[in-house]
Amino acid sequence: MNSFEALIADLHAFVREREWEQFHDPKNLAMALGSEVGELMAELRWVRSEQVDAHVADADKRKRLAAELGDVGILLVLLAERMNIVLLEAMRTKLEENRRKYPVEAARGRAERPGGGG
Amino acid sequence: MNSFEALIADLHAFVREREWEQFHDPKNLAMALGSEVGELMAELRWVRSEQVDAHVADADKRKRLAAELGDVGILLVLLAERMNIVLLEAMRTKLEENRRKYPVEAARGRAERPGGGG
Amino acid sequence: MNSFEALIADLHAFVREREWEQFHDPKNLAMALGSEVGELMAELRWVRSEQVDAHVADADKRKRLAAELGDVGILLVLLAERMNIVLLEAMRTKLEENRRKYPVEAARGRAERPGGGG
Amino acid sequence: MNSFEALIADLHAFVREREWEQFHDPKNLAMALGSEVGELMAELRWVRSEQVDAHVADADKRKRLAAELGDVGILLVLLAERMNIVLLEAMRTKLEENRRKYPVEAARGRAERPGGGG
Repeated sequence: MNSFEALIADLHAFVREREWEQFHDPKNLAMALGSEVGELMAELRWVRSEQVDAHVADADKRKRLAAELGDVGILLVLLAERMNIVLLEAMRTKLEENRRKYPVEAARGRAERPGGGG
Repeated sequence: MNSFEALIADLHAFVREREWEQFHDPKNLAMALGSEVGELMAELRWVRSEQVDAHVADADKRKRLAAELGDVGILLVLLAERMNIVLLEAMRTKLEENRRKYPVEAARGRAERPGGGG
Repeated sequence: MNSFEALIADLHAFVREREWEQFHDPKNLAMALGSEVGELMAELRWVRSEQVDAHVADADKRKRLAAELGDVGILLVLLAERMNIVLLEAMRTKLEENRRKYPVEAARGRAERPGGGG
Repeated sequence: MNSFEALIADLHAFVREREWEQFHDPKNLAMALGSEVGELMAELRWVRSEQVDAHVADADKRKRLAAELGDVGILLVLLAERMNIVLLEAMRTKLEENRRKYPVEAARGRAERPGGGG
């Protein structure tokens, strides 16, 4: 079993031991995912683009950012699992769609969505 | 190389081929992650809890949800990679913290945060 | 001067006195708005739809929800003001668009977006 | 009746005419607010801080940003109203709290949260 699958199994055990399945319907989990992404954004909200790499290089701030990334990842896995969607397959499928949607020659050096950044 | 690591490598190649590294600083990626989670939430916003499992069981809606989960997962990986944080390690670390923070006996059957689900 | 305009003036004074304009570019403010909405969602994430009215009726929880609504409102006003967009006009314009987009007869009793809740 | 109160009354009429109250419980509205903020962030996600003022000055982009601000404002008002919370009072209360929490001398020139702005 590779490490991602092992982590998923451990997350299931964590939830089951605490009898938290009752709170984990798809709507609740999606909302919890939204709140965790909010916490992640809170870490970077007042940092301007030109300072963000220095910010992220700071040991204390990296630790906080890693903790928030971990929370987001856990909620994302729990949500996918709850809906019986295999997250890695969903990501792989989306990557293939994006390859078709943004051919290399047309997309090179341009922000992904015309209206989103030009 | 397991499938998660292979996917990460393919995502790096996808970005590099399109010369999109220039847009992918941590602040931009965190904001893009926030917007993708917004799209995921849009799929479930008008669905009440008691109807959400039937909603998610519908083939067309599952496909849309899987596509949104894929987008969120891709942005999360790109953000972690950009900050040189190993996402699986961050998730594993957070799971261990949560084990200590929410001991089984005390947490059983109670929503994770007292104020958040009471 | 009505109370909304007075509040906007007071928010400007609050920011100016603290010399916080330097942090308040549109990107930072939009990200801060996203993080505040995350805090608001955190208050309701584990509450199922059928329990949410009872939850909201609780005095302590109402106070927390009001505080989060206040934060979101403040950030929304600061963002609009920073972009020289009159928030009330933007809301009025959008309401008129929605009137045209969702005529009463066609929209009655149907969730706003077909794919979003059916 | 001032313009903000008139707008609130018009929003109530808009919802009532379409019989949309049935979808507008606090949880659904909070999730819809999250998705609308996601759309707003999508407009700015690939724009770096040093380019964001030029971006916002563009007429087409301003129009899109104003539309997204309008959506967020409408959802925020609908959510507050649904919970019988007077949004302007909640904002006023929070502003007064922030005045106490961030005294001018201590807060001058420093990002609002120590960990959030470095």
